[in-house]
Amino acid sequence: MFQSAEIGHRIDKKTFNAAVPVLRSALLQAQVQLLEGKKIPVVVLISGQDGAGKGETINVLYEWMDPRFLQTLAFSEPTDEERERPVMWRYWRSLPPKGRVGIFAGSWYSDPIRRRIEGEISQKELDATSEQINRFEAMLVNEGALVLKFWFHLTKEGQEKRLRELQSDPKTAWRVTQWNWDRLKTYDKLMDVSQHLLRVTNTPWAPWIVVEGTDDRYRSLTVGQTLLAAIQAKLTAGDNQDSPVAPMVRVDPDGRNVLSELDMTRALEDKVYRAELAKWQGRLSELVRDPRFKGRSLVCAFEGADAAGKGGAIRRMAAAMDARQYQVIPVAAPTEEERAQPHLWRFWRHLPRKGHIAIFDRTWYGRVLVERVEGFCSQADWQRAYTEINDFEHELIESGVIVVKFWLQITQEEQLRRFKEREQVEFKRFKITQEDWRNREKWGAYQQAICDMVERTSTGNAPWTLVEANDKNYARVKILKTVCERLEAELNAGSPKAKTSDKKPEGKKSGGKKSKK
Amino acid sequence: MFQSAEIGHRIDKKTFNAAVPVLRSALLQAQVQLLEGKKIPVVVLISGQDGAGKGETINVLYEWMDPRFLQTLAFSEPTDEERERPVMWRYWRSLPPKGRVGIFAGSWYSDPIRRRIEGEISQKELDATSEQINRFEAMLVNEGALVLKFWFHLTKEGQEKRLRELQSDPKTAWRVTQWNWDRLKTYDKLMDVSQHLLRVTNTPWAPWIVVEGTDDRYRSLTVGQTLLAAIQAKLTAGDNQDSPVAPMVRVDPDGRNVLSELDMTRALEDKVYRAELAKWQGRLSELVRDPRFKGRSLVCAFEGADAAGKGGAIRRMAAAMDARQYQVIPVAAPTEEERAQPHLWRFWRHLPRKGHIAIFDRTWYGRVLVERVEGFCSQADWQRAYTEINDFEHELIESGVIVVKFWLQITQEEQLRRFKEREQVEFKRFKITQEDWRNREKWGAYQQAICDMVERTSTGNAPWTLVEANDKNYARVKILKTVCERLEAELNAGSPKAKTSDKKPEGKKSGGKKSKK
Repeated sequence: MFQSAEIGHRIDKKTFNAAVPVLRSALLQAQVQLLEGKKIPVVVLISGQDGAGKGETINVLYEWMDPRFLQTLAFSEPTDEERERPVMWRYWRSLPPKGRVGIFAGSWYSDPIRRRIEGEISQKELDATSEQINRFEAMLVNEGALVLKFWFHLTKEGQEKRLRELQSDPKTAWRVTQWNWDRLKTYDKLMDVSQHLLRVTNTPWAPWIVVEGTDDRYRSLTVGQTLLAAIQAKLTAGDNQDSPVAPMVRVDPDGRNVLSELDMTRALEDKVYRAELAKWQGRLSELVRDPRFKGRSLVCAFEGADAAGKGGAIRRMAAAMDARQYQVIPVAAPTEEERAQPHLWRFWRHLPRKGHIAIFDRTWYGRVLVERVEGFCSQADWQRAYTEINDFEHELIESGVIVVKFWLQITQEEQLRRFKEREQVEFKRFKITQEDWRNREKWGAYQQAICDMVERTSTGNAPWTLVEANDKNYARVKILKTVCERLEAELNAGSPKAKTSDKKPEGKKSGGKKSKK
Repeated sequence: MFQSAEIGHRIDKKTFNAAVPVLRSALLQAQVQLLEGKKIPVVVLISGQDGAGKGETINVLYEWMDPRFLQTLAFSEPTDEERERPVMWRYWRSLPPKGRVGIFAGSWYSDPIRRRIEGEISQKELDATSEQINRFEAMLVNEGALVLKFWFHLTKEGQEKRLRELQSDPKTAWRVTQWNWDRLKTYDKLMDVSQHLLRVTNTPWAPWIVVEGTDDRYRSLTVGQTLLAAIQAKLTAGDNQDSPVAPMVRVDPDGRNVLSELDMTRALEDKVYRAELAKWQGRLSELVRDPRFKGRSLVCAFEGADAAGKGGAIRRMAAAMDARQYQVIPVAAPTEEERAQPHLWRFWRHLPRKGHIAIFDRTWYGRVLVERVEGFCSQADWQRAYTEINDFEHELIESGVIVVKFWLQITQEEQLRRFKEREQVEFKRFKITQEDWRNREKWGAYQQAICDMVERTSTGNAPWTLVEANDKNYARVKILKTVCERLEAELNAGSPKAKTSDKKPEGKKSGGKKSKK
């Protein structure tokens, strides 16, 4: 979820100053339309790490928008009045009326996150709360509201750096307290908890928007532009009351994303390649024969542009394993039998038994890539697919499956070169069709779809590995190495990750046992 | 949830024999349409208590339908193959393809219920599982499936009686084992768990259909007719892919329901009435001044036909309390401020503080009664309202609020008499308007809406009390008595019910504390 918010987004002063006046007048106009037209209430949650600029962003929104139709609600300790009523009462009474924008600084997410970090509630209790939250937000959206959930993210280093910067400036030093430094110590725990909570509450009707918090200008512009785009989309959307699906907006103020950040010049000399390949193939061969692997299984997912070299990479992986232990599943258009079932059915049926490996050459991500871009399914279908896919992978992980996912990226130029080469070489000609050429025309739309996919489905236990694949040597070694390292880490961890995190951190259960002695 | 399945539904042989041939040919025709037309997969879950006729019903469906396009999946202990894969794998591989009907005997509900009853999982863990189930079913419906979930219910006495009957007949005696008798002992626990699970999984896209299991003919006919009506509704429904809302079907083979079962002749003589009234008013007055009530609060909801006597009953209740402690909230058409908010907002704002009482004269049920019948909101709106209302009341209960709900029922004749009387009496004339006369014309539609409301929102901690209100004396005393008895039971129970049931039954937490001594 946080990958695309860790690439060091920045907006320079000039770009910022040019963009702001346009944005401001558009925001003011949108507010008028909200009030006078469809009267949509807008609920904006500003959440995320401390020091990631929550307060600053709210101030900027006040500067840019008409404050008469804005309301900010900050929640800390509940008041007397609030404590004597159900937990959600304080939020209900703060909801913005139709046509207004309500900004929630701290929200119904803050308390569950804090309580989980401090070990007051178990993983399952957090999940039960997230279910309540999902229903609450679905109700808001069904009642006509636009719900925008921002999460401001900083890397651990980024957070530390920001605190130091704030502290060294006399004008902002007062904002840094011991409390903030203490938060830094719980960074990993917060990431763990929030990553999980964001995943299960990343619904089609109220998706999360993760924003890199380091650069003030980037953050402000992203929030402002996203807010504007979402309001505009909602205002122009049809009045399909039955469909609680949020407009999908993606703003990109500095034009950078997880794909543009890849160093596509990475390469390995043949000699180094051969040595590395042998080394990692040997390692993989040992790992899948490790007795600890008997109770686990491995699912490898390969996605990539046409001619990115998926097949070659898969063959190098397969070469290290016993054919009885693994299966390569080439995913093409669904068969008739498969079309008669939910879209994930054909992947469920190929799940490996314990001790086995399944390698998918193209995967369940088809729906959010080719089906989305080519219009093979409706927008509602691919939007809900993110949640369904996350649920699917989560179920795999919960049952002990190790999930490794690769996106093989090549440049447009390299793809062209490979297409032409294939046309020249007789035995490779079958690999290239008219369709491949057509797909190239949609390069931009595909890049967008890939970024959305990585943002929404790169989760803690099933992260995406983006592979710079212009050089086949480099790509193959990176893939093998990644698989080995994940396998090794998982086997050393002993038991499925998800299972362990279910336990309450205080170890109350073992305490209970002791008392019986 | 189970109220309407406890009234002793029966179908006599003659009615049954007349209905079956019609139903059978319609079912066969519907199967052909499923296969040849829209190719909808139908998922039918047959769940409920043991001995409530699950197996028999499946056999009847096989008799009535074309078995070539039916498949039955029975799930007991997972096989080797299944154990080595994620929990849901066995259900995925059993899904019926498009155009077929798959009957699940035992389903993804069986295991969580069993584990909760046996104390293997906590209430919150059950809730987390139910969230997974809801997502899975939403996915099925989004993928075009019709999901029908039947729950066969028996009263405890009914279950015992059925077991005895089966045992005494040599032809069926083999079906009763010690295991079945053991289940009888866990009846209350099963009711508790299943009532809760049914409530949280009673979604607009896959609602539960609770069927009284006692009478074979009634049960078979209800299932067959519901299946038919649901398939027909789905076949004729528009292709609105974005709207995963199940068609709302209600079949009523014996024409009886919770309202028709009320004894409307109940009455109290004036003398008895005066004595009883004084007694219960005194009791109420004591209870709300009980120190244990300081940590709780009371919400009373009054609904009823026009002229059913809500106002009079509320005044008799209020007379027993200090005006500083309670508030009567008359609910009329929403104000402009209220219309700018979600429909439940205006009820949230009136929630009482601890130690206080709120009496709602008409309630949050307006949406599923008058708004539904008069068409003031869309079908999708009132269908999702059941879930929203259940969530709302559940949040109240979780925070310690005691929720008491009354439906005051009068006959059409009595209503007419009262309307005419009001027209005669000068000071009562204001109470009757043209609209009241109009509402009378929709009597049937209202009765239907009331039955649906009771079925879907009468939950363990917030049950409906149906009040026979033709005689005002009787109604007022029954209401006061019900409030007192609920209050007394709740105060004696000590703490909010929902809170206690959160704890794992093994009391591990206290064990943990001991070990630290």
